[in-house]
This record gives sequence, structure tokens and C-alpha cells, in this order.
Amino acid sequence: MTKAIFLIQCGDRKGLLSAIVGFFASKGFSILHCQQHTDSYEKRFFMRIELDASDMKISRKELEDSFSSVADELNLEWSCHWSDYRTRIAILVSKASHCLYDLVARQLDGELNAEIPLIISNHPDLEKVANQFRIPFYCFPVGEDKEEQEKKIRDLLRRFDIDLVVLARYMQILSPGFTEEWKDRIINIHHAFLPAFQGANPYLRAYQRGVKMIGATAHYASEDLDQGPIIEQDVVRVNHELTPNGLKEVGKDCEKRVLASAVKAHLEHRIIVYGNKTIVFAVER
Amino acid sequence: MTKAIFLIQCGDRKGLLSAIVGFFASKGFSILHCQQHTDSYEKRFFMRIELDASDMKISRKELEDSFSSVADELNLEWSCHWSDYRTRIAILVSKASHCLYDLVARQLDGELNAEIPLIISNHPDLEKVANQFRIPFYCFPVGEDKEEQEKKIRDLLRRFDIDLVVLARYMQILSPGFTEEWKDRIINIHHAFLPAFQGANPYLRAYQRGVKMIGATAHYASEDLDQGPIIEQDVVRVNHELTPNGLKEVGKDCEKRVLASAVKAHLEHRIIVYGNKTIVFAVER
Amino acid sequence: MTKAIFLIQCGDRKGLLSAIVGFFASKGFSILHCQQHTDSYEKRFFMRIELDASDMKISRKELEDSFSSVADELNLEWSCHWSDYRTRIAILVSKASHCLYDLVARQLDGELNAEIPLIISNHPDLEKVANQFRIPFYCFPVGEDKEEQEKKIRDLLRRFDIDLVVLARYMQILSPGFTEEWKDRIINIHHAFLPAFQGANPYLRAYQRGVKMIGATAHYASEDLDQGPIIEQDVVRVNHELTPNGLKEVGKDCEKRVLASAVKAHLEHRIIVYGNKTIVFAVER
Amino acid sequence: MTKAIFLIQCGDRKGLLSAIVGFFASKGFSILHCQQHTDSYEKRFFMRIELDASDMKISRKELEDSFSSVADELNLEWSCHWSDYRTRIAILVSKASHCLYDLVARQLDGELNAEIPLIISNHPDLEKVANQFRIPFYCFPVGEDKEEQEKKIRDLLRRFDIDLVVLARYMQILSPGFTEEWKDRIINIHHAFLPAFQGANPYLRAYQRGVKMIGATAHYASEDLDQGPIIEQDVVRVNHELTPNGLKEVGKDCEKRVLASAVKAHLEHRIIVYGNKTIVFAVER
Repeated sequence: MTKAIFLIQCGDRKGLLSAIVGFFASKGFSILHCQQHTDSYEKRFFMRIELDASDMKISRKELEDSFSSVADELNLEWSCHWSDYRTRIAILVSKASHCLYDLVARQLDGELNAEIPLIISNHPDLEKVANQFRIPFYCFPVGEDKEEQEKKIRDLLRRFDIDLVVLARYMQILSPGFTEEWKDRIINIHHAFLPAFQGANPYLRAYQRGVKMIGATAHYASEDLDQGPIIEQDVVRVNHELTPNGLKEVGKDCEKRVLASAVKAHLEHRIIVYGNKTIVFAVER
Repeated sequence: MTKAIFLIQCGDRKGLLSAIVGFFASKGFSILHCQQHTDSYEKRFFMRIELDASDMKISRKELEDSFSSVADELNLEWSCHWSDYRTRIAILVSKASHCLYDLVARQLDGELNAEIPLIISNHPDLEKVANQFRIPFYCFPVGEDKEEQEKKIRDLLRRFDIDLVVLARYMQILSPGFTEEWKDRIINIHHAFLPAFQGANPYLRAYQRGVKMIGATAHYASEDLDQGPIIEQDVVRVNHELTPNGLKEVGKDCEKRVLASAVKAHLEHRIIVYGNKTIVFAVER
Repeated sequence: MTKAIFLIQCGDRKGLLSAIVGFFASKGFSILHCQQHTDSYEKRFFMRIELDASDMKISRKELEDSFSSVADELNLEWSCHWSDYRTRIAILVSKASHCLYDLVARQLDGELNAEIPLIISNHPDLEKVANQFRIPFYCFPVGEDKEEQEKKIRDLLRRFDIDLVVLARYMQILSPGFTEEWKDRIINIHHAFLPAFQGANPYLRAYQRGVKMIGATAHYASEDLDQGPIIEQDVVRVNHELTPNGLKEVGKDCEKRVLASAVKAHLEHRIIVYGNKTIVFAVER
Repeated sequence: MTKAIFLIQCGDRKGLLSAIVGFFASKGFSILHCQQHTDSYEKRFFMRIELDASDMKISRKELEDSFSSVADELNLEWSCHWSDYRTRIAILVSKASHCLYDLVARQLDGELNAEIPLIISNHPDLEKVANQFRIPFYCFPVGEDKEEQEKKIRDLLRRFDIDLVVLARYMQILSPGFTEEWKDRIINIHHAFLPAFQGANPYLRAYQRGVKMIGATAHYASEDLDQGPIIEQDVVRVNHELTPNGLKEVGKDCEKRVLASAVKAHLEHRIIVYGNKTIVFAVER
């Protein structure tokens, strides 16, 4: 079944839900799911609505245009997505392979509504993994001219019509220009439970601090390192029996799970970003 | 802020959400939260809607009556609850004290929107706990005439205007007449992850089977033992280092947490029962 | 560093720990880890001891022979394993690919101390996955003669010098002869939290019972279906928003995690089987 | 059964385990549990050994003295504890009651091998809770002279022969003199997943950062605020539906669970402190 998904936010006030739901009802749509949340602290209204679009009487453009008029009146920020479009993902990696394997295996297994047309790296190490799955692999080492390296990446992303960039343990900081151009379209996995252990070597620092759980955090990349809107986090219990290397091994599963979960939420249009935070609506399937 | 909470269910069809939301909007209510779920497998519509009732233009009765007309038209099953009413709970216990302590401490701590006017037991052991908290304690041992014992309990529940019965490790099976009269108003805690280890001695059986996690299940009591609609479950990781008694000790925390969570969901009117299952809406606060 | 790992069990009595530890000390070994557990309920002694074998003065056979004498005196059941041996795994699958992808990716990523020289199936569907990873794939459909089909599998296992069989969602019941021959060397993943939902269609039955968590269980296969010694279990929280198919999707991650964890425990020689239960020693790395 | 528990640590080297275990065997003790851990990164040896002391041939002093000689030779740091001694706990609180209720209820329920002879606060609010349980309550408001207030507390702790101080949401920073005197004998609960959100108002800051899990950390108090050795941590999943106050409510259960778990580990002599870290041995019962 083809679905149309609307993500909506605005300042909270009376009558919003009724007006929006009424609009779709008046157009004859069957509402499959409606998730609404009001942040009473921020006084902000958030909504995700999923419509049965398999038997539409009007064109997609007509629907979007006519909702646009309502949205202007009500002063809504919104986006509309169609379930039959497959998002195009570029995966950026460095040397660690576990997240790459995990994402590609999930895609092949039909778990992600997405294509992965290319893999980009700053190191040659993972070319063999890309070859195994016959995915084009581009290697741009970071030499003296970091700007030039980034330019090559950004050109490629455009050339391949990429919608979403996934930093699957890509160990380079992106420039503000890059993160700005790709705002809310770059997902990074950080191997710690943010805001704890921002920056480098989180597992070693976790060992030194003697924490009893380690974690991973998936977030949209922003100009400030490890500060962007958090999408998903998880932790795993550890104990004194693990060295820094042991923590790193144990943490891999947590990283894979958290990154995959965040990517899926993005692909299923379940995320609204507000300021530096996300509203992530629950799965219904 | 006083709130009105409507719980609604019916067979799914087009236009339900719009009609219901439109009704409350037309009466001038501010909708604080609206949670809607369609079970696409059962083709059933479920909804919880929370209204700001602090400044109502009409009486409570008028609201309920006028919604009743709409509900008849739309063929809805529904109930309406008011946040300023404190539910009256009777706790039934036998010999184990941990769930009793936990519930009473939570009530004293202001965590439960409820009164606990009495504690009933089939054993005298926990009278000292009741006394500590100055809650009336009634002891009805199960002698030869089990029917007579139950009659005393049911009379007391009526006399104390009880709304909800919580079986906090009450180790007696209730008669079908009792569970029928109190349908969806008796919450039981079973010390296992149902449907595993139904019936007696679940911790010993968990030890014998060598499971790696033990659990607890809170459910509405029904005629068939341990078969009623499940409200909440949780588990805790265990290992070979625990004997049956060790499992029992470790399981206590899980039982307390699960029972308290289920009781809170009931008190906050977040549960809809459908057949032998529950829809439990998430907390928003 | 090469390590020798001894797994030991026997009826509990005084002086065992001292005698065993004393033996290895007298031979000049450095003890890297010593994990000991006494089941006070069963009065049984279990032990795992890891020795630094990188600089041995005696041959491996001499060590095993001289420990054998001590073991006979003390009436120990024991086994000895060497960390430089890579266990040979055969993966058996049917149609679901997620566990297969997960295990192979982990092996390629260096997470498993094992080889995977072949994949066997009763359906042709996953041949393309095997090809992708260039692992030989054998397909033996179950026709009229089930005994003949099993014979072919068992012959292959012998021919490939297989040490461990992993049933990664292999949906065929093995004969008693097969499970007997491969006792404690076949790991199966069951897609439910055993002993709940033994047998077929656990996700549908979980949906129908309205459980609030679903799980997965890895266990050694035994003659009785889903009754063998449990190695690892885990659960994931679910709610009313998931249909039977949704549960199946959500459960995949849990199955992968549980199966991989059990296989690793086996490969790292951290499991002792006693009766129908396992002692699984914690990771230390 | 009375047990003697030895906690031992020292620089790692060959033969330690054998020497220590041999000592107890030579004295004729039955070893109930022996847990040993070598931190290969720090090259440090840690051990917990539990002896059956119900039928001792020598006096407790003789055992400790003769072990002391061995320990001097081997250069061990160690302590010896007897299971029939009930640790004396002083609970310090401010205004939040949930951790106080939880600890007292567990003590009454027989879950803690401890006495709670007094409760101390810097606010009068919780006197009614103390009275309910007939535990002496001392209120020392922090006025102009903070040193004087602390002196009164430290005098009381001495007068009541206190062994362990539990800061159950006591919202005052202790002076270096206090934490030094009570090194490794003050357990504090911090309402965040350290090292994230050290200091004041962690729930508000967690809300502002948009984390997807909140946590709690129990640690020994040290001179530096929220920097002492961590004993136990746990987290709970949250989402956009919770305001700062909602997070605070949801966090209470996590705080109670983590604090109780840390206190139990201390009372059961399962903790060894090394530098700024703890080794917490697993429960065996």
C-alpha cells in the first residue's frame, strides 16, 4: 500500500488537531495512523500523520499544494513523504567495518527502504567489503588540503543524487559548510552515551572513569562536534572484567543497533527536528 | 489542571478521528494529548484523548451526555474519567511484603493518584506493616468455607467504595463470580514472564529449566488463572550463580516495578481492554 | 598469546579448588583467569581456568595426560581447549537470511574465532547470500525420505571436519540420532522466550496473547524440540502498535544478538553443560 | 551459616591464587565461593573468597592474624568480614523521600543485612517519614556556619557507631575533611548517568540536551563532586513525551534501584576499590 506521510510542527494553540485532521478527512483520505504530541514545556505542537494513498482521486502535487494553503494559514512547518520512494544513502567510513557490514546486510535483507549506491572513505581498508557487495567505493585520503577532499565528497553526493549521508564510524570532522548544506540529512554514530565522553577515545575514557555501562548515540551532525540533535541511544552493561579493548568489542553491537535504529527512523519519516532536539515517533507496523 | 480523559474503541473505518476530534473542538475544548492507534490486523480503532477541563463552560454531565449521543451514532465503546478523582484501592496480600511496602510507599510519596483505605489478607503476618502505615487491616483466613471468605472480602470492598483491587502477591485463586463482578478492576502480579511458568512455584521451575532471565507480569484477573489481559511485563538477567531462593530475591524488584507500573497505567486511565489484550498508551507528562 | 582453557565439573567437596589450582601452579603455569562456581542447590562444582600457554616447558599432550591423572583421582569431568585452534562451523538455514548475514559478517569482521567452510539449506533461496561471501552452499530439500536428507547433511559435516553446527533459523526438526551424535555441538535459535511459545509460529502466538515483550532463546539442540540446555536469552519491549508481522521484524535483532552471543560463548569455551542446564562464564578480555 | 569473607588485592604475579587458596585449604576451611579477577591492563589481582565459618577450629582473631602473616609476605591489601555482623547505616536526606522510603522498606523486609539507627537531614520535611518507621531523626539546617553543621553530623555518626553513610538525595556538598574521614564508606546517589550531567539539575539539562535515556549513578563520595568511584549505574528509556518534571518522576525508580543495588553490594562485601574505580563481584546466593 502506498502511503503519504506528513510531518508537521508549529507553536501550540487550540484547534490545530481538528483543523489538520479535518482537512485530510474532507479530501476523502483514510488516516492510517495519527501520532500527535504537544510539548507542554516548549508549548509546541508536533504531528505525524500517515494516509492511505493507494487510491488517490487527486495528484500528489494537488494534495501537497492544497495542504500548503492550509499550512500557510495555520503557520505550520511541514514536509510530505511518499512510501514508494527509496531514499538514496551514501555511507562514509574509515577503518572500522562493523557498522558498514550491518547496514549493508540490513539493506540486502530488505529491512531498509533505501538504496546504497556508494561508499566513501578516507582510507582504502574497507574497499574489499564494498567489493564483496559490489557497491562502488571511493577513497579520498585526507591529505594537506582537507577542503579539497571534502569538495570531492560533496560533488559525489550530488552526482549520485544522495538524500542521506550516514557516517558509519567516519573518523573525520566535517566542515561547517558541509554540515550546513546537509543539515538534518547526515546521521553520525558516536561510540559513547552522549553527552558523556564527547570527542576522541571514548572507550578508553570510559574504562578510566570506571563506568558500569557503555553506550552509543546516533545524532544528526551539526557544526559543533557531537552536539547535534540526538536520534537514538542505547547502553550495554559492562563490568571490571573488560579492558579498554574489551569495551570496544562489546560496544560494537550497541553501535550497530543504535545506528540502524536511527537510520530506520529517518527512512520511515518518523523524526521531526526542533532546535537541537528530535521528536521520534514510535514504529507502528 | 483538571483534565477529562476519554478512552474510546470501535471497529475501524474512515472518518472516526476527524469526527471525534471535531466534536471536542466544537465544544471549545483544548486537546492536551491525543493518542490514536489502529490495529490493522484486528481492524480496530483505539483512542485516548485528554482535555483541559479547568475552565469548562458546561457541566461534566452535559459533556458526557452530549458525547454519549455522538458515541451512539458512531457506535463507540467509551469511558470518561476526571483527573481530580482519587481512585480507591484495596490491596490484597498473603505473606510476602515487598509489593505491599512498595505500593504504600509510592502512595505516601504522592506517586499514585489514589487512596488506599484498606488492606485485606488471608494471613495475619502483614498486619504489622499495615499498622505501621495506619491502614486498616482485615484478616480472613481461608478455612473450610472458601465461598464465605470471599463473600466477606466482597462485602468489604463494597462497604469501602473500592474502585480497584490489587493482588499484591495474594496467593489464593478467586472464584469466577468474583473476577466477573470485578472484571478489568482487579490487577494481579504473577512472578514469572507469562505465558512461561503459569501457576505455582515459578522461580523453582525457572531454576530447573535453566532460563537466563526471569520476569514478572501484571495482568487483569480473569476466570482462568494467569490468563487475563497482560498490562505490563519486565525481566531481569540472571545466571547460574542463583539458586531458586536467589532467583526469588532477585525477582522481587522486578515484581514491584511491574506491578507499580501497571497500577499507575490504570490510575492514569491509559489502558483499554480489548478481548484478552490491552492497549496501554504511553505516559505524557 | 596462546592460552589453554580447562572446563571442569564434579560433585562438590572440600579441597577441590586448592588441588586443581595447585596442580597448575606446580607445573609453572601462569593462571590468567580462574572462574569457579559452586551450585549449592545441586552441590556441584564448576570451574573454568585459563592458562598462559605461550611459553610451555612441556608438550600439550604431556599437560593433558598429567592433568588426566589428577582428574581421575579427583573424579573430575573435564575438557581442554587451545586458543589457537579455529573452530569449524557449519551454518544450517532455511529461508530467513538475517541470522546468516549476521554470523558471516561477524566472522569476516574478526569477531569469531572460527571458520565457516560451508552453508547447508533445505531451500535454494539463500544460495545468493552464500555466493556473495564465496562460501560453498549445499541444498538438500526435504523430500519423501527425510532420513536420506539428514544422512547427506551428516556426511558433509564429517567430510568438512565440522566442530559446531549452528541452526540459524533452520526450520526442520532433527532426528534423535542426529542430536545424539552432535550432543552439545548444535546451537539452535528459537524465536521466542522459552519456555514460552515453544514450537511453531511464536510471533503470531505472542501477538494473540498480548505479551509486552518478545524474546529469543539460543540453546543446544536435544531430542525434544525446544527443550535443550539454554545458553542465552534476551527480550525486546513491544506494544500494541505491532502486528504479528511487526513483531517478527522487531524480533530479528533480538534473534541475531542472542544467537551470536551463544556462538561466541561456545567458541570461547565459556560453557559447561550439566543435565539440561548450562553454566556460562562471563567474558573477560 | 556464618561466613568469613576476604577481599584481597595486589599487583599481579604468578602463584598468587594458589598461595591464597592453599592457605585456606591448609586451615581446613571449606571454600564456598571464590571469585578472582586479573585486570590485565592495570596488571592487578583482585579476589573475593567466602569461607564456611560455622564450625571453626580456631578463633576469628587467630584466623585473621595467621592470614595477616601470609598477606605481609605476599604484599596483599586485604580486609576480612563476618556475615553475622549487621552493618550500621546512617541515611542522610534533604527533601526528596523516594530513596528513603525505598531503603527503609527494604531493611524492614529483611533484604539488607543492616541496621538503620538514625536519619539525618538538613531540612525538617522528612521527619514524618522517620517517625512513621520510628527511626530517630536529626535535623541540622545549614546556616551560616557550614563547618559547625558538619561537625554535628560527624559527632552523631561516631556516637551511633555508624559504619556506612548513605546520601539518599542529600543535596549538600560534603567537605574534604568529611569525605577523607569516611573514605569508601559514604555512598551517594547522583540522578544522572555519570560522567554526563555532573552537578546540579541533571534532569533539566537532560531535557534540554534531548537525550533518549536518563540514568542514575551510585558512587563512593570523594573530595571532588560526582567524581568518586562508581559502584552501580542504570538507565531508563525516555522520549519526547516527557517534560523536565516528567523525567524527574520517571527517574525516581532508577535512582532507588541503583542506590539499593550499590548499598547491597557494600553490605555483602562484594566491592573492592582500586584508585578511582570499583571491582564489584557478582551476587552468588
